[in-house]
Amino acid sequence: MLNVHLVPHTHDDVGWLKTVDQYFYGGRNDIQHAGVQYILDSVVGQLLQNPERRFIYVETAFFYRWWKNQPPSMQKAVRQLVDQGRLEFVNGGWCMSDEATTHYSAVIDQMTLGLRFLNDTFGPCGRPRVAWHIDPFGHAREHASMFAQMGYDGFFFGRLDYQDRTNRIRTLEQELLWRASESLEPPYADLFTGILPNGYNPPKGFCWDQSCDDAPIMDDPDLEDYNVDDVVQRFAAAANSQAMAYKTKHIIMTMGSDFQYENANLWYKNLDKLIRYVNTRQANGSQINVLYSTPSCYLQELHRANLTWTLKTDDFFPYADDAHNFWTGYFTSRPALKRYERVSNGRLQTCNQLEVLGGPSSRKGPFGAGDSETLREAMAVAQHHDAVSGTEKQHVANDYARRLANGWQHCQVVVSNSLAALSGSSAGRIYCDNLNVSACPLTEKQIHNPIHKETLPVNASAYTVLDATGTPVDCQVSVCFRPQLVNYLPTYARYQEYFFNRVCVCVCVCVCQFVRATFDPATGLLDSLTNLETQQTIRLTQNFYWYNASDGKSSISDQASGAYIFRPNSSSPFIISCTAETESIQTPELQEVRQQFGPWVSQVIRLHSNSKALEMEWTVGPVPDPPRYHSPALSRLQTLEVTSWSHRKDFRPTWDLRQTEPVAGNYYPINSRAYIKDDKDQLTVVTDRSQGGSSIHDGSLEIMLHRRLLHDDWRGVGEPLNEMSGVFPLGLVVRGRLLLSLTPPALAADAHRPLAQENVLQPLLSFTEGGPPPGSLLEVCALVGFSGLQAALPPAVHLLTLSQWGQDSLLIRLEHQFQTKESKEHSVPFTVNLQVYTQYTHICTWEPLGTHIHTLFPSQSIINLFMVYLIGKDSVRRPTDNSYPMQGS
Amino acid sequence: MLNVHLVPHTHDDVGWLKTVDQYFYGGRNDIQHAGVQYILDSVVGQLLQNPERRFIYVETAFFYRWWKNQPPSMQKAVRQLVDQGRLEFVNGGWCMSDEATTHYSAVIDQMTLGLRFLNDTFGPCGRPRVAWHIDPFGHAREHASMFAQMGYDGFFFGRLDYQDRTNRIRTLEQELLWRASESLEPPYADLFTGILPNGYNPPKGFCWDQSCDDAPIMDDPDLEDYNVDDVVQRFAAAANSQAMAYKTKHIIMTMGSDFQYENANLWYKNLDKLIRYVNTRQANGSQINVLYSTPSCYLQELHRANLTWTLKTDDFFPYADDAHNFWTGYFTSRPALKRYERVSNGRLQTCNQLEVLGGPSSRKGPFGAGDSETLREAMAVAQHHDAVSGTEKQHVANDYARRLANGWQHCQVVVSNSLAALSGSSAGRIYCDNLNVSACPLTEKQIHNPIHKETLPVNASAYTVLDATGTPVDCQVSVCFRPQLVNYLPTYARYQEYFFNRVCVCVCVCVCQFVRATFDPATGLLDSLTNLETQQTIRLTQNFYWYNASDGKSSISDQASGAYIFRPNSSSPFIISCTAETESIQTPELQEVRQQFGPWVSQVIRLHSNSKALEMEWTVGPVPDPPRYHSPALSRLQTLEVTSWSHRKDFRPTWDLRQTEPVAGNYYPINSRAYIKDDKDQLTVVTDRSQGGSSIHDGSLEIMLHRRLLHDDWRGVGEPLNEMSGVFPLGLVVRGRLLLSLTPPALAADAHRPLAQENVLQPLLSFTEGGPPPGSLLEVCALVGFSGLQAALPPAVHLLTLSQWGQDSLLIRLEHQFQTKESKEHSVPFTVNLQVYTQYTHICTWEPLGTHIHTLFPSQSIINLFMVYLIGKDSVRRPTDNSYPMQGS
Repeated sequence: MLNVHLVPHTHDDVGWLKTVDQYFYGGRNDIQHAGVQYILDSVVGQLLQNPERRFIYVETAFFYRWWKNQPPSMQKAVRQLVDQGRLEFVNGGWCMSDEATTHYSAVIDQMTLGLRFLNDTFGPCGRPRVAWHIDPFGHAREHASMFAQMGYDGFFFGRLDYQDRTNRIRTLEQELLWRASESLEPPYADLFTGILPNGYNPPKGFCWDQSCDDAPIMDDPDLEDYNVDDVVQRFAAAANSQAMAYKTKHIIMTMGSDFQYENANLWYKNLDKLIRYVNTRQANGSQINVLYSTPSCYLQELHRANLTWTLKTDDFFPYADDAHNFWTGYFTSRPALKRYERVSNGRLQTCNQLEVLGGPSSRKGPFGAGDSETLREAMAVAQHHDAVSGTEKQHVANDYARRLANGWQHCQVVVSNSLAALSGSSAGRIYCDNLNVSACPLTEKQIHNPIHKETLPVNASAYTVLDATGTPVDCQVSVCFRPQLVNYLPTYARYQEYFFNRVCVCVCVCVCQFVRATFDPATGLLDSLTNLETQQTIRLTQNFYWYNASDGKSSISDQASGAYIFRPNSSSPFIISCTAETESIQTPELQEVRQQFGPWVSQVIRLHSNSKALEMEWTVGPVPDPPRYHSPALSRLQTLEVTSWSHRKDFRPTWDLRQTEPVAGNYYPINSRAYIKDDKDQLTVVTDRSQGGSSIHDGSLEIMLHRRLLHDDWRGVGEPLNEMSGVFPLGLVVRGRLLLSLTPPALAADAHRPLAQENVLQPLLSFTEGGPPPGSLLEVCALVGFSGLQAALPPAVHLLTLSQWGQDSLLIRLEHQFQTKESKEHSVPFTVNLQVYTQYTHICTWEPLGTHIHTLFPSQSIINLFMVYLIGKDSVRRPTDNSYPMQGS
Repeated sequence: MLNVHLVPHTHDDVGWLKTVDQYFYGGRNDIQHAGVQYILDSVVGQLLQNPERRFIYVETAFFYRWWKNQPPSMQKAVRQLVDQGRLEFVNGGWCMSDEATTHYSAVIDQMTLGLRFLNDTFGPCGRPRVAWHIDPFGHAREHASMFAQMGYDGFFFGRLDYQDRTNRIRTLEQELLWRASESLEPPYADLFTGILPNGYNPPKGFCWDQSCDDAPIMDDPDLEDYNVDDVVQRFAAAANSQAMAYKTKHIIMTMGSDFQYENANLWYKNLDKLIRYVNTRQANGSQINVLYSTPSCYLQELHRANLTWTLKTDDFFPYADDAHNFWTGYFTSRPALKRYERVSNGRLQTCNQLEVLGGPSSRKGPFGAGDSETLREAMAVAQHHDAVSGTEKQHVANDYARRLANGWQHCQVVVSNSLAALSGSSAGRIYCDNLNVSACPLTEKQIHNPIHKETLPVNASAYTVLDATGTPVDCQVSVCFRPQLVNYLPTYARYQEYFFNRVCVCVCVCVCQFVRATFDPATGLLDSLTNLETQQTIRLTQNFYWYNASDGKSSISDQASGAYIFRPNSSSPFIISCTAETESIQTPELQEVRQQFGPWVSQVIRLHSNSKALEMEWTVGPVPDPPRYHSPALSRLQTLEVTSWSHRKDFRPTWDLRQTEPVAGNYYPINSRAYIKDDKDQLTVVTDRSQGGSSIHDGSLEIMLHRRLLHDDWRGVGEPLNEMSGVFPLGLVVRGRLLLSLTPPALAADAHRPLAQENVLQPLLSFTEGGPPPGSLLEVCALVGFSGLQAALPPAVHLLTLSQWGQDSLLIRLEHQFQTKESKEHSVPFTVNLQVYTQYTHICTWEPLGTHIHTLFPSQSIINLFMVYLIGKDSVRRPTDNSYPMQGS
């Protein structure tokens, strides 16, 4: 008997064409008909009508909103449905996160938020057993590793490369065992993974949602169009055909799609009939058995089959749905949002930590009531696969940013309260939120705080900078190379004039304590890079290019470049300028070469005296209007001496690739770093946000920085990715930093691990207004230096999370941030005694290990979770299932 | 306090863009998203959730289908909702009938079918108190008269002329008392009539159906877009503005529209909130009270206001929604369907009567099992305002025709069985269903039955025709003037050639016993008409014209002619030919002049020896393709001596008309007859189907016969009205008959009443195959003559209905078919003793009058209903409410 598991489900984007709140309420249905409140109303009503029916729900961001509006009677009924397995949660994070452009730490946070709600609300029966990423556009090994460590029994997804799918159908390998970490001992990062048969849609002809047009089952013989025989026959054909592509006698059909089940009766009424009519045929010898099911029931049957699945150790990037349709554009789409999300992650961690360190008055103190939840939820929502991915409509992107900004406003109160408690001074704190455009009214007026490697806008020419003890430190006042954005806008014409009249000075060499960079005086371009410690030098040039985007009018394919899709219409990018006009500045603290490549591309290459990395601060935009430019802009590094990433170029580990897009088909997501290396040299680039990149030629490494497009790419978003600045209708200007590190391969991780960590979690700057009275410089601050740690953690160990869990409990996560074998010094186990590091000497319980001493193994990103309960408080609050919501290992 | 009655409702067309079955199931949602099964599922579920909620349902055709698929538990719940008034039926007919193109007898039948189901199922609580014609495109006094006689308390509709509405808003006359008959003593045909404020839609901004995009009420202050204050404020504005246009402190808002409430939760969830938030403001002094209500509750409040309403005695035709948008095209649209519906009505009456007369073996006899229900339901469905109106999509028009044909197949069995029982012979009966195109394989082979005034296709040149007693009767064999359609198609080119090579003979005078018609030998056109009995003659010419339809590209208005809208682009029609080529045939029985006006218009003007009317059998089509013709074709009669219908031209009885469309704005529906008259002469034209017509000039009377259009008119149907013949892709050919009667006005009704009745209810022809053995001509028939009446009814009294009601009961309806004062001889009361006329001597009870003697007053179309119970049968079956479903008077 072939068993067909029908899985009724809805896929509810936590923002895409509409904002998350519009989706919840069903507002702006003129954009897209979708209202999650009604979906949950309707599904619950339908489940209650027939105990055979099943449903799964995924996105806790929505479920939580719905739940809190339900009366107790409804909550009770839903609890019963969950207890009986009729309503099953799968995945269960706050959202279904993107896998290419998210940072793992933010993904862990959003999963925690969702799973915690389910656990608190439903207990063990609410625990999702299956990870369910049916829509993300490619799949990261890192995500699978996290899911394995979180204790999921299996993972299902819908999208993979069309060639890969064709092969797997042929070889019956749509089910596989994903070994998702090289560091973790199997089976700690092993995860059964199933590829769904129709993406996440029902088989053709069997969509009975209100949004579909398929014929319902018309079974009244008195009426026209009686079609039961036809439906049963078509269903049998679909089931048998699907069964040919899988190994067992159990197959799954995802009966639902985007925002479906708003009127669940349409689905269930027809599914009830389908099951009845198909199974009735068994009496006549039919070998098909249909049932309502869930992914976990289906998974259980697959496990029971006791088969061996193929092992997979690489990832599912890049994703192409056809020969010229590579979803590699979104790796860079909306670079400003991607950066803002990354900055906000750092701020949330700061907020979390200061909330703990400042004690209860952090939430309610001299600056009023603050909270970290708002930013935590905003960050969780931003992990969605149409959020930080940059594939949402413009107004939705604005909403994500607004949520993060609002979350930060709530956190600012926490931080101010906490700093007041820690410092004993309730002087007002100012947070210069526009430092990215070099604007800060306060510091432009007066400046008091010393900032390590930070540039602050000022408007005088001489300052004394003191450190926390009152000791003067070196500082530099530089004339900002480009006029501040707020000044040089609003007229493009004026700006161009300004640029072309500027005086230019050429410089040749830039040296600091650890690094030397040389420049070609003829071109103004970078010429070589030297690591002075290891005495290795490579010839290295760097310039900016743009790809002319396909507009969909080619004879080969009508695919245009868009928010998702990257499709240059030639394989060679166009250079923006062969030469840069340069200026240089040299102080003991800093050496800068400022390069101008044209009216919309400039760069500052910077060496800080105590840094081992070369900083390249790029400013790109507004990408000019058509006809000439409508394109992704990119920075390409080219060295003649380093062998490239060639193991990924025109190659996929698990099948024989037929490459159809020589550029887009070789783009990969760069989450935080990328490198090219050979036996001798490794050149690592650390990014400040997620970006797309590739190594098209030997020794080259290109990183896409910005995109401005005039066509939609027909993947649903329905808008060209054409971001505007708020000031006047020109495209958005984006600024960012790449950090270059040249090392021998064996020492690379020692450099790039801390470099990337610093880049992800940059310090929060706060300023206090008002100059100190002359002669009493420190009077305003009771405490200007403070550490929450009693001692420094070993460099390999990172405090991933310190946050308040409950009123009397804290959440601490430590991670060993090195992989096995990548560092002689750091890729070793470290034993930490948490009591040594924390000021909380009154801690009574460490969960789940029961001890404060723990050994962390090299396992880049493995999560070590500690629940901390404080002395004298009620221990009833402990979770009963100590492996939940995330397993320690 | 201003009371706002929210009336949740759905408007479910019994066929329009989809067939009635597609609408019921939700099939073909690609055409239009609509599934009535789900609407009723959903509404009932939502009503059960909150006892405050109300809903009304209208179309019993749908409700009946849904009901019979419900389990007893659901039926019980629904009964309770009906008993509690939470689910209220309004109107309650099988459909919401069209008012311009239906025949009253078919409307009475369809209302009976629906109301009977409601009465049988729900008893008195299911009785609709309100007539509800929210969508029909203009309103007939006749309909209001019927509704009054059926006992409705009031009538609501949505569409009326835009100028009329503007005036009524200004004068607060959107509520009125309609005195709908000149014959009936008030208040027998008086009906309170209310014009709904927004057609039948909700006020702008308050549509919360899944098909709408208005913002839901977003009342969670934690989410973005909180809008309660905005919604309450907008609602108050809408309510106050509406209240300005009505007289009382009670106003109605129709919260629903076409096929809405498929997901009733969306509506009710937001309406619940609206009511709560608006009424909460009363504590702050708001004077608005919102409540769930129904039309009957609202009507009750209007009655309680104890006001006097304006009296109206005319109708609401024609309907224009703007200056150039007169809905007068549908009076003629789909003339073949309109005729087929009319023929089917006659066949249903025949079937009904023979089912009664033949006894139980009619339903199950030598020819198998037959029934009249199938045709009764098909006819009921065909009364819908997008059915016989011709405003449906082509595939739906085909479905209506198919249903009628299928119904007739079921009835054929009844008729054959009945005739077998009555004649004692079970010889096979053949029904020549294609006589309209002069095709009947049987009669072309052999012919046995004498047909009064009927033409049968044959293929020999000499026949003997015998009457029922075996006596030979006169007959004529004529060569069919035009080759049969089945022959002259399929090539248009060949046809044209045929036509132009034809020999033509001109004739001048055509005389029969009662009528003389003369023709102008120079033109071949009709020249005069004489009534030989009254010795009155008028000069009368007749010709065919076409209007060039607006294509929507005019500078005045972008309205094109379409299925609904008639908009010629000039006020003068174009003549097809100034002259006709003619032939004539004269026999003692018949004189014919055959006129050919061109390749697509011909006519036979015919005088039967014993007829008092001149028959004009027109054949029009295929209307040639563009560019030259895309137009309605029409027949225009012009007399110089008769004053026109001028009392309706450019004039409306209740307001000062600003005429904007000199032709379309003067078109009216001709249901069965139209006339022009002066003191001396009345020229009456009796039609064989509903058609549009007008008297644009004094003494002229034009009747639109056919329409072929290339543009949609944007009223939703989404197709140009471009009917094709099945044979090859040319437009449809339509044939029909006009009967002309010239009389003094005082005698006109004596002529046209029976003439129209004969034309509506034409005899059914059936044929028996096989020649009788020579010398025994009557051997095959045991009974060739039979009457179900023991004596003839008085000429003024018409047996409107004789049909089986239950197993042991019959339904008899008699009508007095004359209005008061129109006939000296017939406009008088007649007393009938039903026992005299019927063969059913074993009748035991006459309901509702308890007597078999009854006086009928002149009251054209008043319904006299008799329930007849047969002796010895169980009397428990009698309806308990004897004024239901239709009041006798």
